[in-house]
Amino acid sequence: MILKNYVHGGDVYKNRVTLDFSANVNPFGTPEPVKAAIRAAAEAVSRYPDPYCLQLRERLSALYGVSPDAILCGNGAAELIFSFASALRPKTALLPVPSFAEYETALCAAGVAPTFYPLLRENGFALTEDVLGAITADTGVLLLCSPNNPTGRSVEKGLLLRILDRCRETGTWLFLDECFQDLTDGDKAFSLIGALREEDRVLILRAFTKTYGMAGVRLGYAISKHGGLLSAMSEATQPWNVSTVAQQAGLAALECRDWARQARALFKTEKAYLTRALTALGVSVLPGDANYLLLSGVPGLYERLLEKGILVRDCGNYRGLERGDVRIAVRTHEENAALVAAIAEALHG
Amino acid sequence: MILKNYVHGGDVYKNRVTLDFSANVNPFGTPEPVKAAIRAAAEAVSRYPDPYCLQLRERLSALYGVSPDAILCGNGAAELIFSFASALRPKTALLPVPSFAEYETALCAAGVAPTFYPLLRENGFALTEDVLGAITADTGVLLLCSPNNPTGRSVEKGLLLRILDRCRETGTWLFLDECFQDLTDGDKAFSLIGALREEDRVLILRAFTKTYGMAGVRLGYAISKHGGLLSAMSEATQPWNVSTVAQQAGLAALECRDWARQARALFKTEKAYLTRALTALGVSVLPGDANYLLLSGVPGLYERLLEKGILVRDCGNYRGLERGDVRIAVRTHEENAALVAAIAEALHG
Repeated sequence: MILKNYVHGGDVYKNRVTLDFSANVNPFGTPEPVKAAIRAAAEAVSRYPDPYCLQLRERLSALYGVSPDAILCGNGAAELIFSFASALRPKTALLPVPSFAEYETALCAAGVAPTFYPLLRENGFALTEDVLGAITADTGVLLLCSPNNPTGRSVEKGLLLRILDRCRETGTWLFLDECFQDLTDGDKAFSLIGALREEDRVLILRAFTKTYGMAGVRLGYAISKHGGLLSAMSEATQPWNVSTVAQQAGLAALECRDWARQARALFKTEKAYLTRALTALGVSVLPGDANYLLLSGVPGLYERLLEKGILVRDCGNYRGLERGDVRIAVRTHEENAALVAAIAEALHG
Repeated sequence: MILKNYVHGGDVYKNRVTLDFSANVNPFGTPEPVKAAIRAAAEAVSRYPDPYCLQLRERLSALYGVSPDAILCGNGAAELIFSFASALRPKTALLPVPSFAEYETALCAAGVAPTFYPLLRENGFALTEDVLGAITADTGVLLLCSPNNPTGRSVEKGLLLRILDRCRETGTWLFLDECFQDLTDGDKAFSLIGALREEDRVLILRAFTKTYGMAGVRLGYAISKHGGLLSAMSEATQPWNVSTVAQQAGLAALECRDWARQARALFKTEKAYLTRALTALGVSVLPGDANYLLLSGVPGLYERLLEKGILVRDCGNYRGLERGDVRIAVRTHEENAALVAAIAEALHG
């Protein structure tokens, strides 16, 4: 295989899988109105998509109280990571790890070798105020993910605001991936969007992917009040990157406001259940704020579950993690109970 | 508007349009099996797409008689132009003009300022053997489009093979956009795919967009026998760039083998009709090999047709063309006759 070596969850194409806990998508799947919009879009695809995503940006603008010009849509949030790196080409980048692998890949593709800032296992991989000292005038960009993937840890609100201030002082760009915010426990959810000032060197990343079960459609967006950044990212991208299907699906998703709420209610109950049940089995469960949990110290679990047709995410290829660190998506109670039973069997059967 | 200034045809979103001759898509639209595949894909979009596009690449591999490893799929052909430029970052680039604007945009985004090679109006904008002398050991990449957009002129087979040989001698990369080949007159169609040797520094670009009315779905592919190129392009791109919807639509399209043939038959008759009728109106029509025609010397035509709800492509923002050079898609006879009547009225009414 000459193509990029795939290092993510969700690869149900190369594995025989009956239960997929490896991808962090909403277990309720795709809302029916979104499916209907996709079906309807089939009649409109002979035309090119709207290169400006005007309708979608206007709706997002109203939702977040920012100008449509502060919003750029992408072919999934992942594309926007690459166009950010490619448009900015910072001299240096500070990247706390473990974190989502595409940040590093996108930086490297843009010719930037990031400096890694280790999140410590003994702190539960939480970002602490020590990071403030690591942000200097030489730091081109700081890349954060909150809640972080794969640890599930949010950056605490007070710390995030101090980081923003520190980045303003040092002229450092802040890239903040909020793709899991909509699926985060209410008391831990905090978005920086409301704190942004004009010309702040901040980009916030959001996606429809996880919240609305639209991973196969591809739709994400970036929010930035900095005049030049989105324009430069747009210049680094083809004009028709967001398909008509994705634009129509996104418009329909924005009408499904209860979709995330009902998922969050499920996650609250089910994270408590999974934590209790897996801890009883002797598995160490990291407290997580999002729709997935990181288990640690269970080498061989990935392989033994795959034999049973259950796919989880072994995190051995994340910087700062090792084989036996396993990320599981939180799904419906029936699926979670099946996972617990399979883990019990794998460990003690 | 902070976003990239849109310079293409097909923008029916900002204009009141009843007839669109500005986008070069198959006038028969989207085949019913492709629409059905899109509707069916609505049930599968909560999963991530296959990052390797395995099924699609295997089918294309069989179609062209090349290894699946010689094929890379993209979010439309346009994305692959950007990933080519970004992965290769050639020191220099030779770009015959007029041609498709995204080649220059993608090169500039990768930090490459192309050298323009003027195609001459007095030659009907044909590429001639003079280009051979312009290809030297200092030429990093030569970018060709055959048939060329917006002129409709193919690179003649003998010349194309000599260009390939010359590029082999000089170590120059050849980027050849064949996106309109499937809709090209049989006697003018010539693909370089069959002439490629292992490790040739050649990339050939193809799309489903125009042939199968899939512009709103986004699906293109690149073919190259050079081991490192597609791998580098893949590294410069997110893993999930081709949506599940696009992959399923593409598989369905490959079953619709008559779709292009019936369109080519229509174009043959209709290009003759349009050329005869417009010439009779005093309009100069450039002989074109593809599914569109370039008219010249009719300033004001774009505006006067738009008043009637007909969108054509004024080529004034193409390098080497001027306002009044107008590209029209060839559509069904009824639509073409309506266009001729509107042009007659605009010029002589």
